[in-house]
Amino acid sequence: MAFTLHGLAVSPGIAIGHAHLISHALLEVNHYHVAEKYIPEELDRLDDALATVQGELVGLKAAATSGLGHTEVGAFIDLQMMMLADPMLVDAARKLVEERRCNAEWALVQQMEHLVEQFDQIEDPYLRERKADVVQVIERLVKVLLGHPGHLPAKRRDGLGTIIVAHDLSPADTIGFRDHNIAGFVTDVGGPTSHTAIVARNLAIPAVVGLQHIRHLLEDDELVIIDGTRGVVIIDPDPTIVEEYRLRRAELELERSKLHRIKDTHSATLDGEEVFLHANIEGPKDIGQVRAANADGVGLYRTEFLFIGRDTLPDEEEQYEAYKAVLKAMGSKPVTIRTFDVGADKALKHQPSRIEPNPALGLRAIRFSLSEPKMFLTQLRALLRASVHGKLRIMVPMLAHAKEIDQTLGLVDRARAELRAEGAKFDERVEIGAMIEVPAAALSLGMFVRRVSFMSIGTNDLIQYTLAIDRSDDAVVHLYDPLHPAVLKLIAGTIQAGVRYGLPVAVCGEMAGDPAYTLLLLGMGLRHFSMHPSNILGIKQQVLRADVGELAPKVQRILRMDEPAKVRDAVLRLGGGVI
Amino acid sequence: MAFTLHGLAVSPGIAIGHAHLISHALLEVNHYHVAEKYIPEELDRLDDALATVQGELVGLKAAATSGLGHTEVGAFIDLQMMMLADPMLVDAARKLVEERRCNAEWALVQQMEHLVEQFDQIEDPYLRERKADVVQVIERLVKVLLGHPGHLPAKRRDGLGTIIVAHDLSPADTIGFRDHNIAGFVTDVGGPTSHTAIVARNLAIPAVVGLQHIRHLLEDDELVIIDGTRGVVIIDPDPTIVEEYRLRRAELELERSKLHRIKDTHSATLDGEEVFLHANIEGPKDIGQVRAANADGVGLYRTEFLFIGRDTLPDEEEQYEAYKAVLKAMGSKPVTIRTFDVGADKALKHQPSRIEPNPALGLRAIRFSLSEPKMFLTQLRALLRASVHGKLRIMVPMLAHAKEIDQTLGLVDRARAELRAEGAKFDERVEIGAMIEVPAAALSLGMFVRRVSFMSIGTNDLIQYTLAIDRSDDAVVHLYDPLHPAVLKLIAGTIQAGVRYGLPVAVCGEMAGDPAYTLLLLGMGLRHFSMHPSNILGIKQQVLRADVGELAPKVQRILRMDEPAKVRDAVLRLGGGVI
Repeated sequence: MAFTLHGLAVSPGIAIGHAHLISHALLEVNHYHVAEKYIPEELDRLDDALATVQGELVGLKAAATSGLGHTEVGAFIDLQMMMLADPMLVDAARKLVEERRCNAEWALVQQMEHLVEQFDQIEDPYLRERKADVVQVIERLVKVLLGHPGHLPAKRRDGLGTIIVAHDLSPADTIGFRDHNIAGFVTDVGGPTSHTAIVARNLAIPAVVGLQHIRHLLEDDELVIIDGTRGVVIIDPDPTIVEEYRLRRAELELERSKLHRIKDTHSATLDGEEVFLHANIEGPKDIGQVRAANADGVGLYRTEFLFIGRDTLPDEEEQYEAYKAVLKAMGSKPVTIRTFDVGADKALKHQPSRIEPNPALGLRAIRFSLSEPKMFLTQLRALLRASVHGKLRIMVPMLAHAKEIDQTLGLVDRARAELRAEGAKFDERVEIGAMIEVPAAALSLGMFVRRVSFMSIGTNDLIQYTLAIDRSDDAVVHLYDPLHPAVLKLIAGTIQAGVRYGLPVAVCGEMAGDPAYTLLLLGMGLRHFSMHPSNILGIKQQVLRADVGELAPKVQRILRMDEPAKVRDAVLRLGGGVI
Repeated sequence: MAFTLHGLAVSPGIAIGHAHLISHALLEVNHYHVAEKYIPEELDRLDDALATVQGELVGLKAAATSGLGHTEVGAFIDLQMMMLADPMLVDAARKLVEERRCNAEWALVQQMEHLVEQFDQIEDPYLRERKADVVQVIERLVKVLLGHPGHLPAKRRDGLGTIIVAHDLSPADTIGFRDHNIAGFVTDVGGPTSHTAIVARNLAIPAVVGLQHIRHLLEDDELVIIDGTRGVVIIDPDPTIVEEYRLRRAELELERSKLHRIKDTHSATLDGEEVFLHANIEGPKDIGQVRAANADGVGLYRTEFLFIGRDTLPDEEEQYEAYKAVLKAMGSKPVTIRTFDVGADKALKHQPSRIEPNPALGLRAIRFSLSEPKMFLTQLRALLRASVHGKLRIMVPMLAHAKEIDQTLGLVDRARAELRAEGAKFDERVEIGAMIEVPAAALSLGMFVRRVSFMSIGTNDLIQYTLAIDRSDDAVVHLYDPLHPAVLKLIAGTIQAGVRYGLPVAVCGEMAGDPAYTLLLLGMGLRHFSMHPSNILGIKQQVLRADVGELAPKVQRILRMDEPAKVRDAVLRLGGGVI
């Protein structure tokens, strides 16, 4: 019997596929007694699982804390690490194995049930909620013990994809899915800025969240349609409905293929202004997508993905290979590689972790790099050595102080001197640029233009700091506003400083990949956009129908406005779509 | 035998007094067995202590999370609340009372030692450090059981004060000391932005921190000299040294009394510009200090101290009395009352607490007030009703969006309409003003000047957001810089917008109370300073020797500079002292 559910549309497009319910591993636990002689072995299993999960959490924390939007994940993972170390959990489970000969999974689940019962009696709602962490930690342990850490079904013969159905996708799950071929996501909980939503949009996979109890309403393998544009999920649809959605999907694909036809069109405005559309990537694996979109180059290569989620740091050689692969693949097109932008030092096992009161205002990006000069120098050496294989530009995140720029340039000079002394080859003309993403930077551009060769505006962070809003925080996300007059002033000011001093300026935050802002940015004078490869053709379509001669004076008027409502109206009137 | 120790000078001045070692209550625990029939009573003692400490922590968390600099405290208190709820702690201790008839203190300490041993075996340094939280929680419980939650010794007959000697002062301790007569603080750990340092400076009490093992080097009651200007501590000094320091202290007091002599001098520059020096206060208790400094008014009354650290919210009547007390005491002088600036909602027991990834970028101040319109309306009604007793101005913190200002003004109008309908009297001319402390606000002043009647720059937060630095975070505090060209641009821009549109502008952050910045701010055009009352006379001294006709063009030149080193030099050349 077909039925339809309505949820939050967080990633557009239509998906038709078979449901794959992400199990609560806890429901699959077998209960059995272990023979006396196998008890030591069973304890080893438990200890191995503990060590594995401990490692997973350390890795996930490092992966999770690399961006401003994901810092809350770090805090939760911390709590889970604490619980993992709590003797109440571990010792009690060991005891159940030793004394009652329970298998490890059973022992963990028993102890979990015991703890959950105790948590349920707590009056304080904050503490009571921590129950969920206990359950998640145990679930993670049980998954490791059962040997299925999130295996996905193989491809089906009917050609339909897999639709992931989960209560919620944890950071771990979504990081794990990155390399799989998923048709759609459906979850019980979540909002437009939830982890599921962000990952789905980045992967251009339709997703509907906030469906309450969907996991209990359908079965594994059942046919599901997702309309990620309208927030509709249809379970067990009639063939006529499937046909209708196939048609709609075909239409969407047609639109996409229309976009595809402009792939090789020269990216210029109606009045002949050339506009460069670059790609944001996380590593060599993304090059296929970059080529498919025929990007003019790589505008942001996030190297932190080389560093996080692993036990040892990549050495100079490994880094060199990763940079070289991208440079070679891009040939004569420019590749802008950003030095690692990690949060706290979770990737470095030799250093103690710290609790940061406000990680977004703490030891991040260049601040962290300068606090680890040896590690930073290794990256700079690898970058310079790779420069002979293409057209490299090095970009530095989160700069705000003259001394930070000077220290960075000093380290680049040192790397150059070392390589020269060793007789290693590198391109002497590699340019060094700065991310403009701290308000202080956008307000002291003179300090920057005298020191660096190009600038790239990271609108996501710049907006968050300017408005003092963490948009990963549901309580204040409604205040996140790229069109706040203050934000427009800083972005336009940076673009105009670039024009005035002859420095190329790009935008590489989400605004660059959203067609609603393309005409506004073109009117401000922006000619370099960098975005997720999946957005490039959509933005090119905007560029091709733009007339910057007409736009510029209109945008100048907008920049003089300081009433948000008027600004919004005026930007809408420029065209480009819904804001 | 006298000996001298060197530490970090964090709060200037000289103190001579008797050491009062803040005990580790844990060392004072008696061990005894409880008679069988008294076991239920002993368990009640334990439960009472648990409830008391739980309540203390909830209150402290609320008190601690009200300011940006204190948010880290909130996180640690969270951890401690979790531990308090951990059955491994509580159940185990209860068991020791029941089964082995230990007294409650002994049971707690035993279980603590057991846990500490386990923590010591953890390899992960982050988790290992959490041991300190276990110890602190148990210490807090034991203190409650022993019935001495931080009692201070009575005044001595020799007229010397009490010097608090502690490993570190917790937020709880420092909050507790506020109302005591302490001569000085000495601690083993801490830095210039540690809790001890901030509290000591606010109370104008000499303090030296970072002395390593001082608690083990002296005894309770021993004579101690603190030189909080040079970071020197002398233990058991010879009479000649005591004499020397008495002399030095007298000199300092002389200087202070010289300052005292300008108390009634009209606050104006050499060239006759009138400058208003206002006080920042936390409640009616601070009025004595305000009068002693002969402040021109109250520039910032932080009302959140009425709301935090308690179980129920103050009703309209209680608030009315608190506002009225200050307004009456100040007579015809203006009193600027800031609506409550709480962080997350810890003061409201009916709401669940939330973990915020970055509390400084979350639901704070006006954002919180607007999310609790009923509570906010109650405050506005109380404020308006109190307005008949003096010269009230209402100030709103953390505004950044036009709609926030409009919603706030809408609520003020509603409060007025309600009072009119009820026939309650209030001053119809009460002005509404905005704190400028978010970069977006300082960059969209047009939006503000059309809506509010005055502005006050909160430099602490403005600097932190502009630089994306949390200065309570040791790892990045070196990047906190009030003289960053971007910061000066925003402050000067706000002051100048005030001049241009005829709106009074004040500075009420720490820069206003630091003589190193007085001439710079005067040169920018600032005429309203608001600061801790203890700083008022020092700032007046700067004002009296300033010539703004000379300063203004020099400062204009500084504002055109964008090299930090040059800015720093130029500000130093203005005079005013060390930066």
